[in-house]
Amino acid sequence: MRAAVMRGTRLIVDDVPEPIPQAGEVLVKTLACGICGSDLHALKHRDLFFENSSGLGSQLDPGRDLVMGHEFCAEILDYGPNTEKLHPVGTRVCSFPMLVRGQQLAPVGYCNDVPGGYAEKMLLMEALLLPVPNGLATETAALTEPMAVGLHAVEMAHMTEDDVPLVIGCGPVGLAVISALKLKGAAPIIAADFSPARRKLAERLGADIVIDPASNSPYEDWQQAARASEQGQRAESNPLTGERLLPAGVFFECVGVPGVIDQMMVGAERGCRFVVVGVCMEQDHIKPLLGVTKELNLQFVLGYTPEEFALTLNNIAQGLINAEPLITGKIGVDGVPQAFTDLENPEAHAKIIVEPWH
Amino acid sequence: MRAAVMRGTRLIVDDVPEPIPQAGEVLVKTLACGICGSDLHALKHRDLFFENSSGLGSQLDPGRDLVMGHEFCAEILDYGPNTEKLHPVGTRVCSFPMLVRGQQLAPVGYCNDVPGGYAEKMLLMEALLLPVPNGLATETAALTEPMAVGLHAVEMAHMTEDDVPLVIGCGPVGLAVISALKLKGAAPIIAADFSPARRKLAERLGADIVIDPASNSPYEDWQQAARASEQGQRAESNPLTGERLLPAGVFFECVGVPGVIDQMMVGAERGCRFVVVGVCMEQDHIKPLLGVTKELNLQFVLGYTPEEFALTLNNIAQGLINAEPLITGKIGVDGVPQAFTDLENPEAHAKIIVEPWH
Repeated sequence: MRAAVMRGTRLIVDDVPEPIPQAGEVLVKTLACGICGSDLHALKHRDLFFENSSGLGSQLDPGRDLVMGHEFCAEILDYGPNTEKLHPVGTRVCSFPMLVRGQQLAPVGYCNDVPGGYAEKMLLMEALLLPVPNGLATETAALTEPMAVGLHAVEMAHMTEDDVPLVIGCGPVGLAVISALKLKGAAPIIAADFSPARRKLAERLGADIVIDPASNSPYEDWQQAARASEQGQRAESNPLTGERLLPAGVFFECVGVPGVIDQMMVGAERGCRFVVVGVCMEQDHIKPLLGVTKELNLQFVLGYTPEEFALTLNNIAQGLINAEPLITGKIGVDGVPQAFTDLENPEAHAKIIVEPWH
Repeated sequence: MRAAVMRGTRLIVDDVPEPIPQAGEVLVKTLACGICGSDLHALKHRDLFFENSSGLGSQLDPGRDLVMGHEFCAEILDYGPNTEKLHPVGTRVCSFPMLVRGQQLAPVGYCNDVPGGYAEKMLLMEALLLPVPNGLATETAALTEPMAVGLHAVEMAHMTEDDVPLVIGCGPVGLAVISALKLKGAAPIIAADFSPARRKLAERLGADIVIDPASNSPYEDWQQAARASEQGQRAESNPLTGERLLPAGVFFECVGVPGVIDQMMVGAERGCRFVVVGVCMEQDHIKPLLGVTKELNLQFVLGYTPEEFALTLNNIAQGLINAEPLITGKIGVDGVPQAFTDLENPEAHAKIIVEPWH
């Protein structure tokens, strides 16, 4: 079957063997698969990514082919042994992108043993299949995975009604965080990105105030908005000085390049909580003294739980999350290498969907 | 009056003007004042410390004298205007080391306007005075401040009965954390330090397992101890793979030099929470990817609340915290510059007490 393959340091299109379902597994046809920023990171920073891949569930081997793609919607083709065949062949499904083989995890899209969604066919676990509800469009269903990342990040923030969020970076991760914040009722939602196109998307997904960091400091604008907010109106005063305190800041790092956490630590107010969702592959620098004097909290987050994944699919299907505007392009497998380049331009693209059958 | 003064980049002994109490303030005689690691940091990294000093409450001026010392026990000499004179002159007192002058904070020991405890006399706020209870020895009462740092750090960790703590570094900060963990009933308490003398102190203050990082990995030993602990026995299994999970790790960073947080991030298990109590003055490096794949949480902490401070004094006075073993030397004001050098040897010293009247 045709697939976009990471071979050595290159991304090429080639024929790869069709996968054979093991016990409890299902063979599916990939209908749509989004290209994730992590895949771009994996190609660009291959050595670092492979070295640290055990944190994702399995150790990647740089000497073997890797077919990435973990943001998919698929169609059931055939059942492997020891399956209950609950859903008819032809059913459209999403799935938490993971196979469990004994005590081994095989993360779909980040495992040498099974292909991800940049191939015509994949294997999924029957126990994790979620039929696409409500006649939801296939390419929108494929956005379940990135949107679940936003839901998980917001869950890990343990938001209270006194918190005023700031989203740094409005790529797909930042946009998913914004939509999860909106669903949670957080207000005002403040977001910042250098790209006009991304700022427009941030507004469409629910941001109340969008900032261009080239002209305004997101941290100063956050302070102003927080002070003017309902939370700001009922904020307490410092018991020693009587000075009015700001609402608690919850800052989401959705960029993932060196220097952003440091910049956020400089800009943050005392007691601010950071949720680090962006995946910075390189070594980064911070000034611990800033963290200490401001008593900052940094919560690093990864992925989502199976429950958060299922909830996100339902939220999208019920129209509670408007994920569709993220899609800015559709391609076949042959277009994947070029798409990895095209995605570097935030004005042109947010999410490109691969349709390997195309 | 005589004082140890930070003047420019040097620490010298000189005469300085006696302070005059303003409204709500009390003139006190410094009976005992501990030398804090932060004071050593402030002298060594003066520019960085002064630049970031606003985080402590007031902006320090490198062009003016600074009399440090914020771990004190004192005796009331005289009351300023607008005071209630609740405690008789001669009463021994401790105090949250802060003056509030209108909307201005003056942190005692880190403010150019008022002297800290390395001087014969100080100013304190009447409203914050805490008489030393139970006939507690003066030099032990002076340890209230560093021990309160430990209590605050443990409070900020939000420990549950499933958590197994690891204390990295057994200087005064680490020892204070150990004593607060002991008081909280945490077990087993695991602690690591290169110094044999510090490891012995860690045991005296309540550590159950002490590790020499030169011969054993604190992180591997923590895993082993956590697995064997009561928490380890009742730990849940991974729902996907059935593998038994470890209890949650709460790691306290009590060293404050570059590279320690990174090393802890490498050694930590998934879901580990760090409490960063050590004050690293220089720029530090981390690998965010490690934080992300392990979903680590970093809580930076500073100081303590007035309530935690008062509670700590009572805990010491009631014998619930055994702070006295920390004291390894007593000197007069003239001995302060030499003590700053002596404290660099962890075999010889943990806490040196200055008695300016001596």
